[in-house]
Amino acid sequence: MSAIPSNVVIREVGLRDGLQSIQTIVPTSRKLQWIREAHAAGQTEIEVGSFVPARSLPQLADTAELVAYAKALPGLFTSVLVPNLKGAEKAIEAQADLLLVPLSASHAHSLANLRKTPDDVVAEVARIRAARDAAGSKTLIEGGIGTAFGCTLQGEVRPADVLRCMQALLDAGCDRVSIADTVGYADPCRVRELFARARDIAGERFWCGHFHDTRGLALANVCAALEVGVNRFDATLAGIGGCPHAPGASGNAATEDLAFMLESMGMGTGLDIERLLALRAQVAGWLEGETLHGTLWRAGLPKTFEPAAAAAA
Amino acid sequence: MSAIPSNVVIREVGLRDGLQSIQTIVPTSRKLQWIREAHAAGQTEIEVGSFVPARSLPQLADTAELVAYAKALPGLFTSVLVPNLKGAEKAIEAQADLLLVPLSASHAHSLANLRKTPDDVVAEVARIRAARDAAGSKTLIEGGIGTAFGCTLQGEVRPADVLRCMQALLDAGCDRVSIADTVGYADPCRVRELFARARDIAGERFWCGHFHDTRGLALANVCAALEVGVNRFDATLAGIGGCPHAPGASGNAATEDLAFMLESMGMGTGLDIERLLALRAQVAGWLEGETLHGTLWRAGLPKTFEPAAAAAA
Repeated sequence: MSAIPSNVVIREVGLRDGLQSIQTIVPTSRKLQWIREAHAAGQTEIEVGSFVPARSLPQLADTAELVAYAKALPGLFTSVLVPNLKGAEKAIEAQADLLLVPLSASHAHSLANLRKTPDDVVAEVARIRAARDAAGSKTLIEGGIGTAFGCTLQGEVRPADVLRCMQALLDAGCDRVSIADTVGYADPCRVRELFARARDIAGERFWCGHFHDTRGLALANVCAALEVGVNRFDATLAGIGGCPHAPGASGNAATEDLAFMLESMGMGTGLDIERLLALRAQVAGWLEGETLHGTLWRAGLPKTFEPAAAAAA
Repeated sequence: MSAIPSNVVIREVGLRDGLQSIQTIVPTSRKLQWIREAHAAGQTEIEVGSFVPARSLPQLADTAELVAYAKALPGLFTSVLVPNLKGAEKAIEAQADLLLVPLSASHAHSLANLRKTPDDVVAEVARIRAARDAAGSKTLIEGGIGTAFGCTLQGEVRPADVLRCMQALLDAGCDRVSIADTVGYADPCRVRELFARARDIAGERFWCGHFHDTRGLALANVCAALEVGVNRFDATLAGIGGCPHAPGASGNAATEDLAFMLESMGMGTGLDIERLLALRAQVAGWLEGETLHGTLWRAGLPKTFEPAAAAAA
């Protein structure tokens, strides 16, 4: 309980983790508008897309253009997901601030989803690190460990395996590591335990928690992670996204609900929640017919709500 | 963090707090089935209804019959809500195990909702206590303090006012006191603080936390309350209920989601979650067209799920 952060960063991953599992193709112009409005609402870190073959994810084919646009917005830290060296080369070329390489701690999920073992991914990270260094690039490399609390294919994933992957990723040259509950298997007790051990291993290089809300525990899990000092979380506007193995289930933690919780708890996020809600309404219009999530948009901010910065002043 | 409970009671309030804000009138036979199935799924405490004038809440007009039925089920602790002495007399006559008297810590909400000041309610509780004692009844009296984290009418409600009400309720003869976030204004930090102080005042007589999920924080708030040793929470199957001042907003913590969280965290609830989900499906059929909540019913239990009792064995 010693290290509850006073400021927390919400990294917006709606344009990547959100849109990749949504049918509606959002035109690039609207994505640019989303990035612009999110930045205006105070978002300082956005994962804008993924450098994967366009044929596998046509929804994200405009990632290079989005990176270029986002990088030009003042103070916006722009990240992308890459599945392999080829994607990483594109991220480096685009001068993304950070590239995230997903690794699945579940051997079965890793083979099914990435067609690689966790060790193969670690080896690929080493190649990515070499390429980054050879290019003299400043793009940071994050290893994102998914299915860290279990997996719908394999079932149990042991904390020791997650931490072994984390150490291997750091050894292979990751600048940052993060942990994701890809399928909503985590609970606050296990989050507290695993994240505390992860912080012990990676220190400040432990970068981010990523919680799906498949079983409604995303915000409770964030609270548990806050208690061990984690101060950066992925979230998606309107909670879009999800897991193909749990159809209809809730997606990610909703950015606007998470921001509300953190600000209510006195933790500064730098976010203007009313602006986020306005953006949410706009995005909801673009995604008509898709399943959206979150609760704050319906209820609105409490009459008594004060942003953390105002409360501290 | 010293007193995290190993067992937690979920008090089902769906038949009262849930149904009272739902249009569909559920026939008594179905309510009896609900109570029977909930009991079979392991629920040991159920608030079956409310002794209010039938004309104001026709949905709950069969409360006496439900109490009689519930009391006959082995080990089922049966409670009702009563707004005043007249209702309390009916609860005592029906031999309910517990009657809950709501008090709104918000002066404005109290006048609007109960047409009494908080002090008037305290005085009524003293009369209820006298009537209970005069009748030689064993019915316990719980003072339930609502709008404890703020209110849509008045705005801020100060913790000191909540605690003053709590002390007054205890002094007036309540056997139990509880705290409710009626409109979803609470956050985990304020829950931890207020509940810790409430426990200091009331000790074991601090009985229950009641969190609406209006802004998605119900489960996170439960986690905060657990950390200060609170081990009983109200919830409603399918999260039904809500606040007339926040139309469309989520209702209560969903029983099935809460049970899943607690069991995942290793806290025994005595509940058979699969049976709860089956009951939820049945109730959902009865409430067709109404807005239901919760997430577990869609996603199902994780492949790796073990009830706390099994995990401890």
